Amino acid sequence: MAANGDITFHTRKWVRPEDLNANGTLFGGSLLRWIDEEAAIYAIIQLGNGHAVTKYMSEINFVSSAKQGDLIEMGLTATHFGRTSLTMRAEVRNMFTRQSILTIEKLVFVNLGEDGQPAPHGYTDITYTRDRVPRQHLST
Amino acid sequence: MAANGDITFHTRKWVRPEDLNANGTLFGGSLLRWIDEEAAIYAIIQLGNGHAVTKYMSEINFVSSAKQGDLIEMGLTATHFGRTSLTMRAEVRNMFTRQSILTIEKLVFVNLGEDGQPAPHGYTDITYTRDRVPRQHLST
Amino acid sequence: MAANGDITFHTRKWVRPEDLNANGTLFGGSLLRWIDEEAAIYAIIQLGNGHAVTKYMSEINFVSSAKQGDLIEMGLTATHFGRTSLTMRAEVRNMFTRQSILTIEKLVFVNLGEDGQPAPHGYTDITYTRDRVPRQHLST
Amino acid sequence: MAANGDITFHTRKWVRPEDLNANGTLFGGSLLRWIDEEAAIYAIIQLGNGHAVTKYMSEINFVSSAKQGDLIEMGLTATHFGRTSLTMRAEVRNMFTRQSILTIEKLVFVNLGEDGQPAPHGYTDITYTRDRVPRQHLST
Amino acid sequence: MAANGDITFHTRKWVRPEDLNANGTLFGGSLLRWIDEEAAIYAIIQLGNGHAVTKYMSEINFVSSAKQGDLIEMGLTATHFGRTSLTMRAEVRNMFTRQSILTIEKLVFVNLGEDGQPAPHGYTDITYTRDRVPRQHLST
Amino acid sequence: MAANGDITFHTRKWVRPEDLNANGTLFGGSLLRWIDEEAAIYAIIQLGNGHAVTKYMSEINFVSSAKQGDLIEMGLTATHFGRTSLTMRAEVRNMFTRQSILTIEKLVFVNLGEDGQPAPHGYTDITYTRDRVPRQHLST
Repeated sequence: MAANGDITFHTRKWVRPEDLNANGTLFGGSLLRWIDEEAAIYAIIQLGNGHAVTKYMSEINFVSSAKQGDLIEMGLTATHFGRTSLTMRAEVRNMFTRQSILTIEKLVFVNLGEDGQPAPHGYTDITYTRDRVPRQHLST
Repeated sequence: MAANGDITFHTRKWVRPEDLNANGTLFGGSLLRWIDEEAAIYAIIQLGNGHAVTKYMSEINFVSSAKQGDLIEMGLTATHFGRTSLTMRAEVRNMFTRQSILTIEKLVFVNLGEDGQPAPHGYTDITYTRDRVPRQHLST
Repeated sequence: MAANGDITFHTRKWVRPEDLNANGTLFGGSLLRWIDEEAAIYAIIQLGNGHAVTKYMSEINFVSSAKQGDLIEMGLTATHFGRTSLTMRAEVRNMFTRQSILTIEKLVFVNLGEDGQPAPHGYTDITYTRDRVPRQHLST
Repeated sequence: MAANGDITFHTRKWVRPEDLNANGTLFGGSLLRWIDEEAAIYAIIQLGNGHAVTKYMSEINFVSSAKQGDLIEMGLTATHFGRTSLTMRAEVRNMFTRQSILTIEKLVFVNLGEDGQPAPHGYTDITYTRDRVPRQHLST
Repeated sequence: MAANGDITFHTRKWVRPEDLNANGTLFGGSLLRWIDEEAAIYAIIQLGNGHAVTKYMSEINFVSSAKQGDLIEMGLTATHFGRTSLTMRAEVRNMFTRQSILTIEKLVFVNLGEDGQPAPHGYTDITYTRDRVPRQHLST
Repeated sequence: MAANGDITFHTRKWVRPEDLNANGTLFGGSLLRWIDEEAAIYAIIQLGNGHAVTKYMSEINFVSSAKQGDLIEMGLTATHFGRTSLTMRAEVRNMFTRQSILTIEKLVFVNLGEDGQPAPHGYTDITYTRDRVPRQHLST
């Protein structure tokens, strides 16, 4: 679905009144929350483990914004598999204006074991099939 | 990206505590809200118009559920273009259990004009490129 | 308080900015969430059990809408008691315009036992007194 | 539906995880928010005006609480019509335990005119029919 | 940081669309929720215990309001230490207009033991250092 | 209240179920949202203008976390006044464990004029008094 290293855009959001700042543009806080959620989903699929947490984000430039009613889409791609970590690149785009909203070069999640400590995940490359999605519920 | 009539799965959700009923499974109300939001996004792209509203949903069987921490994904495909309406088929799946959660055979949105009344949209088939995404903001 | 088969309107909602779509009218997703919550409350009272989940909804026509500041009210009535299920009829009205917003002829909830599986509820008719409201907390 | 001065219980809430404090019981803040919303709805119907705001609340004793999964119901009754104000009595009950959660003897809302200033509302008694519900949308 | 009896203002809120009533001013329900949350935080620090619940609030006059985009700040001070309770005085101010929004003379929280019953807290005066902040997590 | 360059901690948050990830620790997305909101509030006070938006965030290390029921506090200090921008340093701490949760060395907001474009703010140093808080509402 995507060439190695390319970003596949998945989750889309519709900018609603609750996502605006007082200037009438997309609130940075909503945007950051959406990215972290999407990165968590992506990491779960790549690591085959529901227990993964945000560890590091590289610098973020907010190059353009969005308004109420605009659609935005978020894309991620795995760029490096460490022993217990996964590094991703993230991009968010405004579908109305075709402009990039922001790019995060490095977004690192850590794979956790049963004890809540970093644990090896055993992977070295991206999955495009879904063979790694966890098959047990976390909450049982 | 998908053969005509096939469903492309886009937006994913991570089931969180606020999405559960008292039985510890995914709350029907959260699920219905997510589907309607995703259908609105899909309709905006197909109709090239940010002003489209839910008009009709056919019957819904809740065939399986999800638990906290599960990932679900939602897919839609356009099945019929009326003069002022768009009919879609929706499916929601649990990525952990690989099971279908629900299917909605007909989900109809109506295209609205400036006056808030149904207006012809002029399309007769699905777009897979993004040539129809609106290019003006709604809120200006 | 209501003749058999009649609908008693209980919960009311005040339409707020967060409940609107980009066209400035009541968002279908908010509406569906409210109905499912109200149906869950109604089912708990009729079945005397806090563990009941949405199983089926018949088709829905969105015949009119609501705007910010409008009041809407939701009514439900039990129409059939199956062995493990409860079928309800739901109606939502706009108190400002006096118009029906939507009607759902069949909304089915299933009664669950301790094991999360469908369990007989033992009832065959509607209660108007409150003799069936559960008396134990679910969370203890 | 209620004798003059009696309270009619309308809106019901289902206590969800997001409504709990760290002690696992119903959070006072959620409860206060629900009451104020319900009082606003009641005031709109009694005053025939969507522009009414909270002016005063008398003391509140939190006599019992609720847990996750419990149902609570809120009741209000008009106790005094001032020239520009409406005084209500509020009660919240736990439907599971049959206990009162709290009572507020005086909850005063003020009727506002187009200019946002207090304005006479012209009423002196409670309506049980719905002849006073506003018929124009606020947002047009 | 504050003389005995003085109020120290801590948490600030930015009034957003979701916090408004239909009149375009700050919704009483949002305000009451914020105060109760802030009082819970203050009580946890003063009592050195994460298990404390709202027991009583004295009357509240809503003397002024706020609009979208305004900043408000909330201040609390302990005024009395009972055996199992803590009494606070609360004030909320609009930072834009410099006006008081409301004052609550008595806001009482009760300290709870492991069994969820009122328990002596052992304190008789305010802490300005942070020697009482609990050091164990509640959720382990 | 703070020496030049020191951080003053203001807004506190109480970690609730809705702020947790599936691992039971504070969700990175909630945390980022809170920081951006607090930075917006701080910028409004320093720039005397309600129209300021997030422009840049330097890298973020998530060095420790928090659990349900924990208190966290956020602190900011202005580190540089550009012609149209304000650079801040942010720190978030866990009040229960006394540990730093994260630090952001540079968080840049841009001051906007009536036309939504960057505009000079005219300030070169931090205010500890409140002489710069805007005195007009944004929404009038």
